[in-house]
Amino acid sequence: MSFSSVPAAPAAIDEAPVSGQSHLSLYWCGAGDGYLSLLDQTRLPVDLVRLRLENVEQVHEAIVQLRVRGAPAIGIAAAYGVCLTLRERISSLHSDPAAGSTSAAVAEAAEQVRRSCRYLATSRPTAVNLFWALDRMQRRLELAAAKVTTERELAEQLLAEAHAIRLEDQQMCRSIGHHGARLLPDAGGVLTHCNTGGLATAELGTALAAIVTAHRMGKQIHVYADETRPLLQGARLTAWELQQQGVPVTLICDSMAAQVMQQGLIEAVIVGADRITANGDVANKIGTYGLAVLAKHHGIPFFVAAPSSTFDLELDDGDGIPIEQRSPAEVSHWGGVQTAPAGVAIYNPAFDVTPAELVTALITERGVIDPIDAAAIRQLLGPTSVTNR
Amino acid sequence: MSFSSVPAAPAAIDEAPVSGQSHLSLYWCGAGDGYLSLLDQTRLPVDLVRLRLENVEQVHEAIVQLRVRGAPAIGIAAAYGVCLTLRERISSLHSDPAAGSTSAAVAEAAEQVRRSCRYLATSRPTAVNLFWALDRMQRRLELAAAKVTTERELAEQLLAEAHAIRLEDQQMCRSIGHHGARLLPDAGGVLTHCNTGGLATAELGTALAAIVTAHRMGKQIHVYADETRPLLQGARLTAWELQQQGVPVTLICDSMAAQVMQQGLIEAVIVGADRITANGDVANKIGTYGLAVLAKHHGIPFFVAAPSSTFDLELDDGDGIPIEQRSPAEVSHWGGVQTAPAGVAIYNPAFDVTPAELVTALITERGVIDPIDAAAIRQLLGPTSVTNR
Repeated sequence: MSFSSVPAAPAAIDEAPVSGQSHLSLYWCGAGDGYLSLLDQTRLPVDLVRLRLENVEQVHEAIVQLRVRGAPAIGIAAAYGVCLTLRERISSLHSDPAAGSTSAAVAEAAEQVRRSCRYLATSRPTAVNLFWALDRMQRRLELAAAKVTTERELAEQLLAEAHAIRLEDQQMCRSIGHHGARLLPDAGGVLTHCNTGGLATAELGTALAAIVTAHRMGKQIHVYADETRPLLQGARLTAWELQQQGVPVTLICDSMAAQVMQQGLIEAVIVGADRITANGDVANKIGTYGLAVLAKHHGIPFFVAAPSSTFDLELDDGDGIPIEQRSPAEVSHWGGVQTAPAGVAIYNPAFDVTPAELVTALITERGVIDPIDAAAIRQLLGPTSVTNR
Repeated sequence: MSFSSVPAAPAAIDEAPVSGQSHLSLYWCGAGDGYLSLLDQTRLPVDLVRLRLENVEQVHEAIVQLRVRGAPAIGIAAAYGVCLTLRERISSLHSDPAAGSTSAAVAEAAEQVRRSCRYLATSRPTAVNLFWALDRMQRRLELAAAKVTTERELAEQLLAEAHAIRLEDQQMCRSIGHHGARLLPDAGGVLTHCNTGGLATAELGTALAAIVTAHRMGKQIHVYADETRPLLQGARLTAWELQQQGVPVTLICDSMAAQVMQQGLIEAVIVGADRITANGDVANKIGTYGLAVLAKHHGIPFFVAAPSSTFDLELDDGDGIPIEQRSPAEVSHWGGVQTAPAGVAIYNPAFDVTPAELVTALITERGVIDPIDAAAIRQLLGPTSVTNR
């Protein structure tokens, strides 16, 4: 196997998606010699294309090209990418089962997996979840390599770890969905921003998990989805996901949120979070802070849903969060069309910080924090919170 | 002359813009047989193209295709379009000066102008200023036709009226600029929304007139311009106009306004208005109301600049203003690229209503209304206000 620095060609299109799962961001098909089925998010919302990834280079390419995005989904993709390292070796054992049963063969396979981990870590250098998942796969590798006697067993151990990572994420989404759904109104409009859905996770997502769960409980929720400039995740992904889930949704421009609130169409706002500090300040997609101010003005509850791994208790409050500036081209161009004059200054922060006092409740997989203060956050998260990612 | 229902071909490119005026939305060049020079706004902000319009069909096409936009600018273009009716006749008189001096010739010319007025009225059926300008040209036509003895005199009368319309608009912009500039800070950030600049008027604009005038007075203003989804007038037009005027400007997405306020970068917000009711409620481009709420939360003054013709004293308050819904395609597509899933519901109101209590002051060409109440508005506008447009 050679790792090219040029991204590999995209994977083949998966012609046989598992029935009823065609909207899932990614899942494994088969045993140790199976493959990773991945929804190509760059083709949404126009085309629904699932890719069949059969080697680690295709997974690397999919992460680089944003075919898979969202911190948890990237971590899961990388974990399964590690498993694909041994796919060809395992397949070849069908004809010669004894070949993979020497200690030299196991050691060679383990070394190949280590190279895969290093290679996959180069796909998104700023993705914390990517490194976390790869570290976890490598720990499992070293434990397994010392114990197993066949390549097949090694592959099974790695696949079990990748499945565990996916399952834990799925469970986290379901718990957030459960806790969040109770807080949403029995009927009425719920406004959300950016994409916090299943595409970014194993299933269901975070803020969107609460919405989808409420819908499944029979609550008559109508979602107003902000398009979320500049990259339009709300238009391209959230609106699409809600359509797939059968949740009534209306797409609006970000600048229309105030008006739908003014018209009494919104009963609650729910968003995700990139980072939450010890006092409950929330860093999230640019535009979140403005929504929180507008919600307060209109007396509308403002909820933030995020896994406990999002909390960063080493930061006292939001003042400590550096604001990432992104490329001006995201604002000045769309679809290849220039929409701003050449040379104009552009301010393009990736996210903003909403002070805790504007947040009605924080929803995590461990429960709900309301009212929000540092003690309540520390109590809910417990001693393991800082180190679990 | 025949009026085709198919828009005429665009006019020739004006190769010789008047020096220093290349950023003006439109101006007349020459005498009765001159032409209308128009900045093609559909080519901004990428290309600076001036068109040379020499007949009424080209003016009609320019209005239909939004090459000229903004209520006052459309009115002025139509007025000059009426003048172009007689351009060919006047030109032919150079060789035979006596030909246009019969009462039959004058009557024939007048009838041709009446047809032009009816034709131009079909170019933008919802543009109040268009009808207002054409009515005014027709009144002048009837007065003149009864008095003059030559076609040339008739043409001169019409051109004088068109020039008067343009000059009054220019004076209105300057007065608003003068009154508004005094209210802006001596230094610091000023946030604006949509396009209220010279492109929409004869010169300078309304809210942007205040900014440009303050800049010329030596105030150290730095403008933050909302891009203004869905049609991006802020990005395409406002940022470009401010560049042309040498005013420092930073372009932001609409969802970033709250953050720049939070960071202390904004000293004042100033916007235009589509309609202002008797109590001071303001209908303006969608997104304005949200800015007003955000400004209040951050203790930032919120100014509205508009000509007195914008006031509609027949409406008690903003509840009476119907909200125009525009095409979903404005939100779901950009530059030919589909950015939202097929079939998704889209809410796309053209404007919103900001209650008077969120507006610090109303700036008109007649002066400033602060504090805002129905009595102060009625007093400033006087008895002619309802009928002047």
